[in-house]
Amino acid sequence: MAKVARKAMDEIILFLTKAMELINWDDVRRVRDILIDAKNKGKNILVVGMGRSGLVGRAFALRLMHLGFNVFVFGETITPAILADDVVIAISGSGETNTVVRAAEVAKKLGAKVVAVTTRPHSSLAKLADMILVLPGKTKLATEQDYFIRQLLGEHAPLAPLGTLFEITAMIVLDSLVSELMETLHISEDQIRRRHATIE
Amino acid sequence: MAKVARKAMDEIILFLTKAMELINWDDVRRVRDILIDAKNKGKNILVVGMGRSGLVGRAFALRLMHLGFNVFVFGETITPAILADDVVIAISGSGETNTVVRAAEVAKKLGAKVVAVTTRPHSSLAKLADMILVLPGKTKLATEQDYFIRQLLGEHAPLAPLGTLFEITAMIVLDSLVSELMETLHISEDQIRRRHATIE
Amino acid sequence: MAKVARKAMDEIILFLTKAMELINWDDVRRVRDILIDAKNKGKNILVVGMGRSGLVGRAFALRLMHLGFNVFVFGETITPAILADDVVIAISGSGETNTVVRAAEVAKKLGAKVVAVTTRPHSSLAKLADMILVLPGKTKLATEQDYFIRQLLGEHAPLAPLGTLFEITAMIVLDSLVSELMETLHISEDQIRRRHATIE
Amino acid sequence: MAKVARKAMDEIILFLTKAMELINWDDVRRVRDILIDAKNKGKNILVVGMGRSGLVGRAFALRLMHLGFNVFVFGETITPAILADDVVIAISGSGETNTVVRAAEVAKKLGAKVVAVTTRPHSSLAKLADMILVLPGKTKLATEQDYFIRQLLGEHAPLAPLGTLFEITAMIVLDSLVSELMETLHISEDQIRRRHATIE
Repeated sequence: MAKVARKAMDEIILFLTKAMELINWDDVRRVRDILIDAKNKGKNILVVGMGRSGLVGRAFALRLMHLGFNVFVFGETITPAILADDVVIAISGSGETNTVVRAAEVAKKLGAKVVAVTTRPHSSLAKLADMILVLPGKTKLATEQDYFIRQLLGEHAPLAPLGTLFEITAMIVLDSLVSELMETLHISEDQIRRRHATIE
Repeated sequence: MAKVARKAMDEIILFLTKAMELINWDDVRRVRDILIDAKNKGKNILVVGMGRSGLVGRAFALRLMHLGFNVFVFGETITPAILADDVVIAISGSGETNTVVRAAEVAKKLGAKVVAVTTRPHSSLAKLADMILVLPGKTKLATEQDYFIRQLLGEHAPLAPLGTLFEITAMIVLDSLVSELMETLHISEDQIRRRHATIE
Repeated sequence: MAKVARKAMDEIILFLTKAMELINWDDVRRVRDILIDAKNKGKNILVVGMGRSGLVGRAFALRLMHLGFNVFVFGETITPAILADDVVIAISGSGETNTVVRAAEVAKKLGAKVVAVTTRPHSSLAKLADMILVLPGKTKLATEQDYFIRQLLGEHAPLAPLGTLFEITAMIVLDSLVSELMETLHISEDQIRRRHATIE
Repeated sequence: MAKVARKAMDEIILFLTKAMELINWDDVRRVRDILIDAKNKGKNILVVGMGRSGLVGRAFALRLMHLGFNVFVFGETITPAILADDVVIAISGSGETNTVVRAAEVAKKLGAKVVAVTTRPHSSLAKLADMILVLPGKTKLATEQDYFIRQLLGEHAPLAPLGTLFEITAMIVLDSLVSELMETLHISEDQIRRRHATIE
């Protein structure tokens, strides 16, 4: 039996359970409102992230497309010019990932609204964002001063390495936001299914 | 407050808690052994998946790289020829995603070992796999005969649409497998940090 | 001095010069008309290709976006469901690339129009296409019966390996089609510049 | 007949013919030597580029893999940490693409060797590179002071928009370098074919 794996999953679920209590669900609602406002005004959403945070961002972008948003992913082929009032969702656990911070900087200059999804509310990314969604999570920079990890898992280091806990939390919170958006926009699962890629 | 989002996250955690009990952790150990065997023999690992399952696969591939595996992702630029005894990790909740099933078929003909990560043990993908890791999860094909969803969440439909529950479960189980691999290979978090991309 | 490189570039230009005479420019006009018709009807364009052919397809897709088309790339995150009357541009020198042929098959069933860009007019891909744009080029399957290579470069093997000549020819012909589309749609270079990604 | 397309292809070939005379083929040889030196020392090659330059870079990276190099692409999943003496091939027609310049900067700090492929020898990218391969080409920044375009195509604007001429030139020159590398490393087309992706 994969004992360590089982223990790691147990720890991840424990972390998520405690994380859920620490998340500011009013902020989640604010992100929802920013997205719906962009949709109503015909604005574009650009999701920016590198590494595993970028993959979590893509998974969210895919669902936003299913919900009818004009959404694009930084670094993929089809990415139009960012214009004023577009929304940039920038994901970085540490809030210091070079490419993400630079992209957010440029987006601000172009008049776009930047939503930072990060574990560090005082990071470079958070400082220049219009809206910060702070998520519990250890980051790849993690040291003892890490935000949430100690009170959540106690003194011992979690089994999941580097930014894993942030990335999983981000994936689940953004997927939960998808459920919220479905409710607000009155979009059923069947409507999503019809927008799902048919060639894969 | 984003009430529906909070409820969705609550439901996802409930699902994960029950899913953990249904997962065959001996099978997780078998996947670990297949991966370590490939590593010892200098074989390549190819991760195949489309859509959000593909993104979960990439997140796993990235960690395998951190652990020193020769790992590649189907559809990206740098993907070498598959040879006999290479390992293909094929991820598809439904087990019917066209491109994934075809890739697994070709891999089998070339003498590679196919590990299917799926929610449906009788799917086309599972049928041709050497090893099946069955994960609880509703899939995009979900109907009432769905494997786990009823006993896990009861009669009401979960808030998370399409394959979301499978994708989140797959991400967490594969991340748990990463912790298991770290233990078996005696790799510390610091060693992983040193292999983390320095230009991003 | 890189003598072989210089000779290879000389040979590529010689190949392109002769290839230009063999291309059916009426067919290029037909592809233009199919694309403009899709644009006028608000239909989507999906570009499909693997390996280097896929990269050439992405380069074309990027310009189509600049020209205001609703265009997507197979395998990237944001790819909506293909519907009837959408257009699939399928690129494969050999016309036998598994994933491309399968995608074209599914597209046909869904009622989409398939444009094959290939060097082999009797390939599996060409057979199921609504419109075939045949381009001179050696393919990765190349043997002596190859379509154009002998009369173009004579008996000696070209320096450029595998599908290189096809891929370069496809890139240039599709870029030439972009110039044609700009003229037909009265789109200036400045208008394209404004649609160019601003965050990169 | 697609008259404008035919004229555009004619113009592209004319441009390439003149460009070939302006390219410093000693510099191409120097790039070859840098790559082979990295290969002999077991160092990694990282290819960096955004948009269409990034796609040209990936096409080159794919061939480097076929030739047995340890090569990776910025922005894809499997990208290891850059270490001292690794080689970064940074492609940007303008030499000012933000992400590319930043990546080159970080690479320099880490002790990697930066090869700039650009049309502007005084650009930010060129200034920090260890080796500059200057290629004729109009860039997306093109104005009348553009380097080569006037003497090559005369006073009229080329049909190909933005960076197209640079991108095509870069693709062909890098493919020509592949022929040179095959010769130097004594690698036959058949050996490349065997390393070509078997699952696609």
